[in-house]
Amino acid sequence: MKVAVMMGSDSDWPIIKPATELLKEFGIEAQIIVASAHRTPEKVRDIALNSGQDGIDLFIVAAGAAAHLAGVVASYTVKPVIGVPINATPLNGMDALLSTVQMPSGVPVATMAVNGAKNAAVMAAEILAVGSPDLREKLAAYREKLKVAVEKKAARVAAQQL
Amino acid sequence: MKVAVMMGSDSDWPIIKPATELLKEFGIEAQIIVASAHRTPEKVRDIALNSGQDGIDLFIVAAGAAAHLAGVVASYTVKPVIGVPINATPLNGMDALLSTVQMPSGVPVATMAVNGAKNAAVMAAEILAVGSPDLREKLAAYREKLKVAVEKKAARVAAQQL
Amino acid sequence: MKVAVMMGSDSDWPIIKPATELLKEFGIEAQIIVASAHRTPEKVRDIALNSGQDGIDLFIVAAGAAAHLAGVVASYTVKPVIGVPINATPLNGMDALLSTVQMPSGVPVATMAVNGAKNAAVMAAEILAVGSPDLREKLAAYREKLKVAVEKKAARVAAQQL
Amino acid sequence: MKVAVMMGSDSDWPIIKPATELLKEFGIEAQIIVASAHRTPEKVRDIALNSGQDGIDLFIVAAGAAAHLAGVVASYTVKPVIGVPINATPLNGMDALLSTVQMPSGVPVATMAVNGAKNAAVMAAEILAVGSPDLREKLAAYREKLKVAVEKKAARVAAQQL
Amino acid sequence: MKVAVMMGSDSDWPIIKPATELLKEFGIEAQIIVASAHRTPEKVRDIALNSGQDGIDLFIVAAGAAAHLAGVVASYTVKPVIGVPINATPLNGMDALLSTVQMPSGVPVATMAVNGAKNAAVMAAEILAVGSPDLREKLAAYREKLKVAVEKKAARVAAQQL
Amino acid sequence: MKVAVMMGSDSDWPIIKPATELLKEFGIEAQIIVASAHRTPEKVRDIALNSGQDGIDLFIVAAGAAAHLAGVVASYTVKPVIGVPINATPLNGMDALLSTVQMPSGVPVATMAVNGAKNAAVMAAEILAVGSPDLREKLAAYREKLKVAVEKKAARVAAQQL
Amino acid sequence: MKVAVMMGSDSDWPIIKPATELLKEFGIEAQIIVASAHRTPEKVRDIALNSGQDGIDLFIVAAGAAAHLAGVVASYTVKPVIGVPINATPLNGMDALLSTVQMPSGVPVATMAVNGAKNAAVMAAEILAVGSPDLREKLAAYREKLKVAVEKKAARVAAQQL
Amino acid sequence: MKVAVMMGSDSDWPIIKPATELLKEFGIEAQIIVASAHRTPEKVRDIALNSGQDGIDLFIVAAGAAAHLAGVVASYTVKPVIGVPINATPLNGMDALLSTVQMPSGVPVATMAVNGAKNAAVMAAEILAVGSPDLREKLAAYREKLKVAVEKKAARVAAQQL
Repeated sequence: MKVAVMMGSDSDWPIIKPATELLKEFGIEAQIIVASAHRTPEKVRDIALNSGQDGIDLFIVAAGAAAHLAGVVASYTVKPVIGVPINATPLNGMDALLSTVQMPSGVPVATMAVNGAKNAAVMAAEILAVGSPDLREKLAAYREKLKVAVEKKAARVAAQQL
Repeated sequence: MKVAVMMGSDSDWPIIKPATELLKEFGIEAQIIVASAHRTPEKVRDIALNSGQDGIDLFIVAAGAAAHLAGVVASYTVKPVIGVPINATPLNGMDALLSTVQMPSGVPVATMAVNGAKNAAVMAAEILAVGSPDLREKLAAYREKLKVAVEKKAARVAAQQL
Repeated sequence: MKVAVMMGSDSDWPIIKPATELLKEFGIEAQIIVASAHRTPEKVRDIALNSGQDGIDLFIVAAGAAAHLAGVVASYTVKPVIGVPINATPLNGMDALLSTVQMPSGVPVATMAVNGAKNAAVMAAEILAVGSPDLREKLAAYREKLKVAVEKKAARVAAQQL
Repeated sequence: MKVAVMMGSDSDWPIIKPATELLKEFGIEAQIIVASAHRTPEKVRDIALNSGQDGIDLFIVAAGAAAHLAGVVASYTVKPVIGVPINATPLNGMDALLSTVQMPSGVPVATMAVNGAKNAAVMAAEILAVGSPDLREKLAAYREKLKVAVEKKAARVAAQQL
Repeated sequence: MKVAVMMGSDSDWPIIKPATELLKEFGIEAQIIVASAHRTPEKVRDIALNSGQDGIDLFIVAAGAAAHLAGVVASYTVKPVIGVPINATPLNGMDALLSTVQMPSGVPVATMAVNGAKNAAVMAAEILAVGSPDLREKLAAYREKLKVAVEKKAARVAAQQL
Repeated sequence: MKVAVMMGSDSDWPIIKPATELLKEFGIEAQIIVASAHRTPEKVRDIALNSGQDGIDLFIVAAGAAAHLAGVVASYTVKPVIGVPINATPLNGMDALLSTVQMPSGVPVATMAVNGAKNAAVMAAEILAVGSPDLREKLAAYREKLKVAVEKKAARVAAQQL
Repeated sequence: MKVAVMMGSDSDWPIIKPATELLKEFGIEAQIIVASAHRTPEKVRDIALNSGQDGIDLFIVAAGAAAHLAGVVASYTVKPVIGVPINATPLNGMDALLSTVQMPSGVPVATMAVNGAKNAAVMAAEILAVGSPDLREKLAAYREKLKVAVEKKAARVAAQQL
Repeated sequence: MKVAVMMGSDSDWPIIKPATELLKEFGIEAQIIVASAHRTPEKVRDIALNSGQDGIDLFIVAAGAAAHLAGVVASYTVKPVIGVPINATPLNGMDALLSTVQMPSGVPVATMAVNGAKNAAVMAAEILAVGSPDLREKLAAYREKLKVAVEKKAARVAAQQL
């Protein structure tokens, strides 16, 4: 199981890094790629076209502004593309969100929340878990951990409240 | 391979129907469900919780307004949930889009464009194709068909232009 | 008179705390709950379903992003649910506002301003005052205090102006 | 139990009428009032100030554009005010929504969805049901009806699907 | 010549102060008032109704959030009301702008830019200058000063550019 | 008393016409001008610069899209300019509203609601009434008529309600 | 002088056609192309990469939804790309506008108004006129025609006004 | 080859400066101008009208708020005008973007991203390169540099990842 994690700029890395750590936690190999839809289009195309022989199962693609990167990858592959709109301009990420999610009929991008890179890792795991009961169990355990974390937060608020 | 296609209201059916036809075209079984996050929450919960024994691989969930349906399904399952925001209020679908896509960390919904039901079917096929070379070939053929359709449109414009 | 004050995350607590203090000022018991619509859906459901035997008269529910929490509570109870959209993403709370207010017909959420937790406490008091002339008098006194506070501010500006 | 249903213009009546019918269905008296925050401010003020002796328990207030009506009523009474933003300008109701919901601290308006008049009636019933077990039962029955209606819609879609 | 300068909160004062200084520069008397549409509605009404005998020629009214203050003043007087939407919530002043500008037919508010208090003073002077050639000359001189200021800025950029 | 009513296109005329009729009702002369900020800039400039000798007291300026017309007039005169943003593009008038209202410091445009031409006539009358007790009485009578109209609407709703 | 006019779908043709007619009027050859960034990415790439030997001087590119087409062309050429956002989804063209205009540093798209295809033709002519005094004269004549058209509209309004 | 770089305020200079440096890098002369559409309209008009004899080939025009400057320049010349919307108000540059891009038919402004001054320089070079193979080569080299920069960023992320 291997996921290509592509981002348009190294300035996106602090938002993307937790996603790659989560993939590792799920036992999923992540191939980290910095590539730009507009500055290195041939690189993006090559990676998408060669994803079959490179063993890439799906793509996580993060980009800001007129975020075309996820759509461009999707135009060259039928593998699932998960898009993460990045808040990178004065328009608060609304530009990246609409550029990522409003894909035309036939070529979808599975869009996450603005800056929602961590959820892209979870969705990648959910997709790979369709064929892996083992991974599904890890996801169930991850959900359990989230639940426990909420209870800890509840305790913290209760403590402040006394 | 089985996909649950859930919608919040029968008024969404004209938008959802082409998606179910496309699933059939891909040889994917679709279980059509009308259920409301707010009016029939127990039904939604039961379907999500029992998806394992019902053989459901993933969910396509369409809803308008404060579109919580996809998020509610996602809260009860770790199977992939694809969300389709429906334009159902004077706010032009922006309400449904933000309600569907802005999911908190840990529980993602793979969001499509406003009214983008057909792309939900394509994404479902792409997800199921991760484990099925056969389905991937069907997707490649579908893309080829899209390409041919663009060429037909190009011819039509060329004809009008003369 | 008892109000359940639910929030999706402990990070919302600084915004919610003044609301709980105001409830206390009105002599209304507040049960503080941290629970997540998406990470602890069963907990949310249990609280909503058992609100009758727990003596909860109404709910104040605060959440950010795709703020489903108020709607999910409302789907399990016919007690009044007051929703507080929290500004928790780059989209400035517009996502939480639309996710909270645009509820479908039949299952309303009484929505406050973005981050307007204090007003949720006032609205809770106004609702409980329908059956309590005593509480209504407290509300009238509170309004009087607001009026006096405006006059103090007016004096402060007058002083600066000299 | 008596609710004042105020609207800024008779053009809002087709949207408000179903709300008054629903109130009747719940056994709640509705006093229908056409009054304008800006054209008949004294009338609005008189109604709000005299609501005590007129036996009004709460207000439903619908208005479009710079929808000040609900806020103006709320400024003169501590009874609950439910606001319904009406889509009445080219801006698709976003103006009315923000004008209604973004109330300053101390004077809340319980805001419904754009054009969500029917939900205002449900919320009114939920508020009055805090002190009336009988009305709460009616609300539970209403929810049951909604559930049955969803099932009928489900059947209709199933029929079309054959 | 006398202008009432009303603001909803003393927190608006830093934005309003330059406007009052500009009025003084134009030789226009400014009566500074802190009053809240929702917390001190009677005070607002009294000021608007008595503006005739108080010698007020027109109003400058600044408010944030659901900015009803200018509209409420306008509902009680036919004197010109200039509205200044204040950026006072996470929604960046869009709420105040729409609440101020989208007035219904018959009761206008002359709306300035978000936080555009200084322009309210200029507009007040322009209105009063309709009947005062003397004031119009002051306005022409003020414009001349603006022009000179632009030239100074141009020089500053030219200097940095060397 | 003379008002120049300028519009960017004859397609705006149906929205502007009621404003000119209202001006006539107030006894204010209206000089109707079709002129475009971008197609006939010299004409616009000439009218603004010569407004003194042409006896124009103030301007009403309506424009859609990137509505620069009001701002351009304001750049050439210190007479009051009332701007009416017209809904003329797919963006629902939000473009015209922001282009008209967000004027920089020093050169204000008194902005009305999207398509709010009638209110521009009322504001023009309010401005001219600063120096005309007679016109102020006409405005008071107009307000009275609005009030009566609301009562007629109230009666109409009451009739439908029976 | 040759301009490639590319559109994402034949449904854009009615909006694009007047642009091609205007190019002809200016004596500029237009090569009409229907091609999709996402369905026919190789075709788009080939056209952009071969534009040198095909004698294309610049590109006009129209697309709706997540309008990536102009950006993709720009990524493969340093010839000027003029983008026309098309209103093709419930989001009123705001998605296409932001997807087209918010290009990252280094790879610009010269963006026109939503549906502003005709202006793309004018801008193309203005760009080609940098090196062609003859074309600049045609543009000046075109501007003159626009001016005359405004005067005709003015006359029409004057006639209706009588 | 000469480009006029106009900005509405010296506060825009830090955003504009990199654009002028890039022009220099391309060997294009830049004439820096601070001028305001509303405060110095005659200066703006003079520069636009005299651009022919001043040897200006095209304009780069940056402005914030109700950003009319680019449109005003365009109204006086048929030379290409590139507009840069500046984020200068609480509305995050959306006001400047719509004021710049939504130009009416006949008078286009080639609009860049919010604060996208650098891209204005690139677009200026692309336009001038239509008639200059030499400049086109420089642009190709610039693109190559961008590509290399992306690879450096990729290396940096790879290093952090170890």
